[in-house]
This record gives sequence, C-alpha cells and structure tokens, in this order.
Amino acid sequence: MLHDQFVPPAGAFTRSVPIRFSHCDPAGIVYFPHYFNMFNGLIEDWYTQELGYDYAELIMESKYGFPFVHIECDFKIPSRMGDVIDLSLLVERIGRSSLGIAIVCHRDGVERLRARMVTAMMSLETRKPVALPQALRDTIEAYYRRTTNSEARDIARR
Amino acid sequence: MLHDQFVPPAGAFTRSVPIRFSHCDPAGIVYFPHYFNMFNGLIEDWYTQELGYDYAELIMESKYGFPFVHIECDFKIPSRMGDVIDLSLLVERIGRSSLGIAIVCHRDGVERLRARMVTAMMSLETRKPVALPQALRDTIEAYYRRTTNSEARDIARR
Amino acid sequence: MLHDQFVPPAGAFTRSVPIRFSHCDPAGIVYFPHYFNMFNGLIEDWYTQELGYDYAELIMESKYGFPFVHIECDFKIPSRMGDVIDLSLLVERIGRSSLGIAIVCHRDGVERLRARMVTAMMSLETRKPVALPQALRDTIEAYYRRTTNSEARDIARR
Amino acid sequence: MLHDQFVPPAGAFTRSVPIRFSHCDPAGIVYFPHYFNMFNGLIEDWYTQELGYDYAELIMESKYGFPFVHIECDFKIPSRMGDVIDLSLLVERIGRSSLGIAIVCHRDGVERLRARMVTAMMSLETRKPVALPQALRDTIEAYYRRTTNSEARDIARR
Repeated sequence: MLHDQFVPPAGAFTRSVPIRFSHCDPAGIVYFPHYFNMFNGLIEDWYTQELGYDYAELIMESKYGFPFVHIECDFKIPSRMGDVIDLSLLVERIGRSSLGIAIVCHRDGVERLRARMVTAMMSLETRKPVALPQALRDTIEAYYRRTTNSEARDIARR
Repeated sequence: MLHDQFVPPAGAFTRSVPIRFSHCDPAGIVYFPHYFNMFNGLIEDWYTQELGYDYAELIMESKYGFPFVHIECDFKIPSRMGDVIDLSLLVERIGRSSLGIAIVCHRDGVERLRARMVTAMMSLETRKPVALPQALRDTIEAYYRRTTNSEARDIARR
Repeated sequence: MLHDQFVPPAGAFTRSVPIRFSHCDPAGIVYFPHYFNMFNGLIEDWYTQELGYDYAELIMESKYGFPFVHIECDFKIPSRMGDVIDLSLLVERIGRSSLGIAIVCHRDGVERLRARMVTAMMSLETRKPVALPQALRDTIEAYYRRTTNSEARDIARR
Repeated sequence: MLHDQFVPPAGAFTRSVPIRFSHCDPAGIVYFPHYFNMFNGLIEDWYTQELGYDYAELIMESKYGFPFVHIECDFKIPSRMGDVIDLSLLVERIGRSSLGIAIVCHRDGVERLRARMVTAMMSLETRKPVALPQALRDTIEAYYRRTTNSEARDIARR
C-alpha cells in the first residue's frame, strides 16, 4: 500500500498529540470524533501561540464565536494508543468572515489524515457573522503567505 | 435567511436526540464533535433495529470494524440545549466493502446539518477490508431501494 | 463472587441506557468518565420528566447552575458494548442549596455501580449559591418521601 | 471565602493542563467529567514518564488493565477556559493488586479540586485481578517514599 508523503511547509504551526487510552475504541484505534477535538485544540493554540490572539479572551471577553460551517476529512492511516501524532495547520482561504483551514495529521513524513474545514467568525451577542477584524486578517494573511510560499518552494524542489 | 426544507423519505430510519447540557459549549450550542458521536450511535441503531444485525455482536463477536474513510459535513443551523433533533439515515452508495451514508439532522421540516460519510468494513483480526457479506449487502440494498424510491416519489409530488 | 442485589424502590426514576461503541475503551468496557455523562443526563431527565422543571430552561432562561460539589463512585461490575443498563436516581439529602443524590446502575437485579453526589444550586449571574426555591424543594421532598417509603417497605419485606 | 492552600511535595509528579473550549459547558466552566479524563491522562504519563513503564505497552502488549474501583472527588474552585491548571499525583496506598492515588488540581498554591481513587491491576485475558509485579511495586513504593517524606517535611516546616 502506498502512503501519502507529507512534510509540513517551513513555518507551519505544528503540535504533537500523544494518543491516549481515552482516545481509543474497542478496536484499539482512535475513535474518530476525538480527532475533531484535537483539531479544535490546535486551532486554539494557533490563535494564541502563533497569531498572538488569546483564543479564550476572544470568546469569553470579546464574545466572538468561531463555529464550523463545513468540515471534510479523509482518514488514511489509523493511530493507536501510544502513538504520537503531529498536527499541522495550513490556511487555505481567507474570506470576509470565514476562514478555510486544512489540518494534516502526520507522522514520520507520512500523512495519516487530512481535514479541511471552514469556520466563520460571529458575534455571540448578535449571533450574526462579523467581518474578521483587519489586524487579525493581516496576521492570518501573513501566516498564509509565509507558509504557502515555503510549501510551494518545497514542492518545486521535489 | 432561507432554510433548507427537509422531510425524510418514507421508511427512512430516524431517531430523535435530546440536546443535553453535556453537548453544549460556552456559546450554548452543540460543540460539533458531539454530532459525530450521535451519528455513530445512529448507525449502530440502524444496524441493530432496522437491518437486524446486532452491531455490538458484529464488533465484539464477529470481529468486524467499520472505520470511517471519509466524512464531510455542512453545519447550517446550530442546536441549543433543550432542543430535540431528528437524525435520518440515508444510503447513498454500496461498494464492495464500503458504504456511503448520509445523515441529515433536521427539526420541524428544516435541515440543520447534513453529513456524508463513507465507512469501510474490515476484519479486526487481519486489519484488512472485507467484502460486505451477501446477506448484509442484500439487506442494505433493500433499505436503499425502499427509502430512495419513496424519496423520489416525495420529490416528484412537490 | 457475590453480587449486590438491587431493586429500585417503587416510583424511583429509572432510565435505560444502551452501551455504545463510543462508550467503550480498548478493553471493551465502558471508559469510566462516560458514566458521569450518563449521570448528568439522568439528572436532567429527572428534573424535566419527573419533577416537572425543564432543566434546559432552568439553565438557559433562569440562569441557574447545578455544579457538583462532591462525587463518589464504586465501580462493581463493568459494562460492555451492547449491554443495556438501568440507572435509578434516589434522593439522599436536601440541604438549603445543596442536594444529595445517589445513582445506582443496575441490570437484572444486580448492582453494577453506585454513585453518590452532592450538587449545589447557584446563580450563573452572581456565581453564588442560592437557596432551592420553595416549590422545587417541595417537589423534591415529595419525591424523596415517595421513593424512600417504598424502599423502606421493600427492605422490610425481604 | 477561605481557600485550601496546596503546594505539591518535592518530587511529586505534576503536569499542567490548559483548559480548552472543548472542556467548558454553557456556564463557561469545566464540565466535570472532563476532569476524569485529565486524571486518566496524568496516570498514563506518570507510568510512562515517572515510573518508566510504557502505559500503552502495559495495556496493548502485556494485556493489563487498570480499571477504577472507587473514585471520590471534591470540587472546590471551578476552572474556566484559558486557565492553566496543575495536576499532581500522590500515592496513598499500595495494595496487592490495587493502588490508592490522590490527584490534586491546583493553581498558584490554591487547591481547586482533589480526587482520591483506587485502581486495580487486572489481566485483560482472564479478566481477573493480578498482583502488582514486584518491580513495578518497588518503583511505586520508591515514589511513595520519595514524595511522602518530602510532603511530611513540608508540613513539619509550616
């Protein structure tokens, strides 16, 4: 069986997650809804640690929400208890209030699963979508350029 | 805002789920990974109650697994604590060892979210895909014809 | 091995829960934090269906919270995928703002686990405990008398 | 309101956990079953990182299980999204096949919750309790002496 190779572009936000007992099902592999939990955690950390926006404050203080509008996910290789997986976040599209993100789960250069998701930014008070604030948009665009350029470079080199 | 209307085809396997405190996030709406949990529960009940195959036995005794290969989901209308939502299961495609399923979450004739997913049937012992046993395939095909025909009839009547 | 017998007192609020794939761990038995989820669901249903107080409204409209102050739980017999377990709720103590509850998980007259828990009633706005409203207190006391009397009767008969 | 002070004994196994969106309920605080998940994760890390026994191997290779027999927990101070809490593991009692553990959740020298739990060691194949292997027992006893002595010293100094 051929596996998809994956090396995250330089600068891509990547975090490791240990696969725990609590993640695994009677078949001994990760029960899939837990991946979505991990993705949400990665997005939180990306806002806070990479973009410099405290995710908890955005929600609890500024009363913003970031509901998912669309998710799709391809599960390629299962992960087992004791594995450590790497999750990398890539920006795919920056809309007015929406954000298209890909999260790739990989290990040792092999892609295990890939999710593409669209989140919207909304006001928790009006329950309506709001435009991404310009400073946040600029920060996300800088991340996009930074990680896309180097990905393109990587591809060009292969 | 226009909402998508949805009435399940006659005979479609439908179960109601009460939205609980435990499903909801600080914004007071369902935290999305819980939906995938509900979907898995619906599929279990569909095997056991509609198809006549005890899902627990398929896994624990017959050592089959039904991992998800692909999932996509559109989130249209959020659900809140105290809501009761209906989940209907539709078969979209029957492959050799794979099964394409749609699950529609709806309430009062309005679609709230729709997921399309592909599961594979595998042996937990060999960890390889296995062909759907003929009797199971026949049962699923009968469900497919039964619910697709009536859906088509419903559409024709509108 | 001797098992603890358990028959709920007449009138005790009891609900059945099917053990699902999603509840089970790599050892094939319920991963214990899921029980606490089930307990919370039982308490919600008890308020709504037995006491006549819509739990979702108490929280979302009246802005009450019911945090747990203390929990203890004895795990006696594990449950497996495909089992259906019964959960019965008994009131143990009614304080000014606190409520002592026992939840017994049983099947076929045998006790599988028993939890005792204390919840407090608080205002989500002031974040301080509030006294149980008199009408709610009366309703809970009536439930307590109803189910304790019959339990005592049951014991007397053995 | 007086808070319980807590400083872990020197050498106590302590890990920090960020409180995430996924942990929090509509009241904005950690939904309590998630704490039990965190406790299980701490125990896994304690076995692997402190005791030198790979927890995943103990379960998946050696076919041991560590079910909880008893849990009790006092919830003192709620935690909110964005908080980082510290969890410290203390050994309370080493039985033939059982282990009594306390996990203290604390932050800035203040105790937020404390759980006491008893796990048993069992064979996943025979489904019967097994005696703690001598080498594992020795390692746990050394941890117990190491952390209890220093705790006693700390108490004596106050």
